[in-house]
Amino acid sequence: MSSISPPMLFSSSPRPPPPQVLRVSSLYAAEPSFSDPMAASAPKWAQKTITLPPHHRGCHLITPKILNEIGSDLSGFKCGLAHLFLHHTSASLTINENYDSDVRDDTETFLNKIVPEGRSAPWKHTLEGPDDMPAHIKSSMFGCSLTIPITDGKLNMGTWQGIWLCEHRDYPTARKVVVTLNGI
Amino acid sequence: MSSISPPMLFSSSPRPPPPQVLRVSSLYAAEPSFSDPMAASAPKWAQKTITLPPHHRGCHLITPKILNEIGSDLSGFKCGLAHLFLHHTSASLTINENYDSDVRDDTETFLNKIVPEGRSAPWKHTLEGPDDMPAHIKSSMFGCSLTIPITDGKLNMGTWQGIWLCEHRDYPTARKVVVTLNGI
Amino acid sequence: MSSISPPMLFSSSPRPPPPQVLRVSSLYAAEPSFSDPMAASAPKWAQKTITLPPHHRGCHLITPKILNEIGSDLSGFKCGLAHLFLHHTSASLTINENYDSDVRDDTETFLNKIVPEGRSAPWKHTLEGPDDMPAHIKSSMFGCSLTIPITDGKLNMGTWQGIWLCEHRDYPTARKVVVTLNGI
Repeated sequence: MSSISPPMLFSSSPRPPPPQVLRVSSLYAAEPSFSDPMAASAPKWAQKTITLPPHHRGCHLITPKILNEIGSDLSGFKCGLAHLFLHHTSASLTINENYDSDVRDDTETFLNKIVPEGRSAPWKHTLEGPDDMPAHIKSSMFGCSLTIPITDGKLNMGTWQGIWLCEHRDYPTARKVVVTLNGI
Repeated sequence: MSSISPPMLFSSSPRPPPPQVLRVSSLYAAEPSFSDPMAASAPKWAQKTITLPPHHRGCHLITPKILNEIGSDLSGFKCGLAHLFLHHTSASLTINENYDSDVRDDTETFLNKIVPEGRSAPWKHTLEGPDDMPAHIKSSMFGCSLTIPITDGKLNMGTWQGIWLCEHRDYPTARKVVVTLNGI
Repeated sequence: MSSISPPMLFSSSPRPPPPQVLRVSSLYAAEPSFSDPMAASAPKWAQKTITLPPHHRGCHLITPKILNEIGSDLSGFKCGLAHLFLHHTSASLTINENYDSDVRDDTETFLNKIVPEGRSAPWKHTLEGPDDMPAHIKSSMFGCSLTIPITDGKLNMGTWQGIWLCEHRDYPTARKVVVTLNGI
């Protein structure tokens, strides 16, 4: 995914302007393709559970880790959808900026600002620590799943888009993601 | 879904620790399966509209109700995706904790805290009552649809995950959910 | 999509009550259909990238624009899912009320109220202007993708649901949406 890797080579200076938006002609697979019968007769499904190592509380760019796990699987799909499903209720998955880590830090700042924690918080659910109930709320705000188009064997995301894991607990734990690929 | 039912037998005491996270080997259906030609040649689609009875304002665990409607359909899918789509703009669907009802109460408390209602609210849209505009905002915050992986005939959710219906209106009404299942 | 158009004929008076909720019998495609072998043997995939013209900062109903691009494609699907994926991190897609533009204005008011901007904001990421970091946060709050059921050749949304593009930047730019259709 060249749209993801290059920014990682840069230092934290202003981003170059994104490429001009162009209309892309349709990719159709409406009829059985006799040149490629398998594509028409046997749409492919792949599903695997991957484990993300513990990440500290905050937002983390995990696109490289996800691609490392599913990149070779993706290459078998001409057109399809990739679904990522986080198996937890105190962390979240979201798509956001892949370039400046300040964006991830500021997003964590925002989440902590609008979801009260500790003595000022009105929560009844406190048995698992002051960070637990805020973590559940943040998980529903950003959500625990993503669906991303697959085009020509790659995740079809925008130039500046990346996959984030947002860890909302203080104590980092491994997180499980069920990835389901479907397409032709 | 055994991961959903057991917690309902417990009282509101601290949860036992979740099971250790393990890597699960891939489930692949990349090639036509000659032992099960149907799987390869005819991926299955099922779609139905289910009606949820009126729920009072707040967050409600509806996993058992959903499974009661689609459980037998799910059993026909070895690998796939289940999509739930709420037909309304003043309620939402989210995935969160399935064990302690305090988590659902606290989430409702949070929503009411950050979305002003009544005299203090700046809304122009007030024709349908003071709870209507806040309900629309909450609906976009949590969203009206969910996509959940299907594995071996069951929704593949985490041990503590459940499906919530969040009703944002004061006057409860029945809510319609379009469920679409796709897989092999 | 008759569920979208009619409201546009009305003036901004209170909405008529929604139609009574009814149970709809299942639409199944579990077995190969010999009356329609194509449906069983060749599920259809269609994918295209559409470009939305620049919209000013705020929430916009874009259902007509989307249907204008994919309506004829949708008509080929008896049952399926439509996935819309916005290629940007400073705008969002959400489903909300399709009738009263005040709802869209109030939603923009809400977003600006809870995400601080300018001198009062604690953001580190300010190189791209005071509206940029708030835009990224709003994008993760509402999300950049939608999945909508397809039934009998149309998007199966509720009577009052519409597709919104929420533009979070001050300077309007064209926005790219990858639309993926899958079904039978």
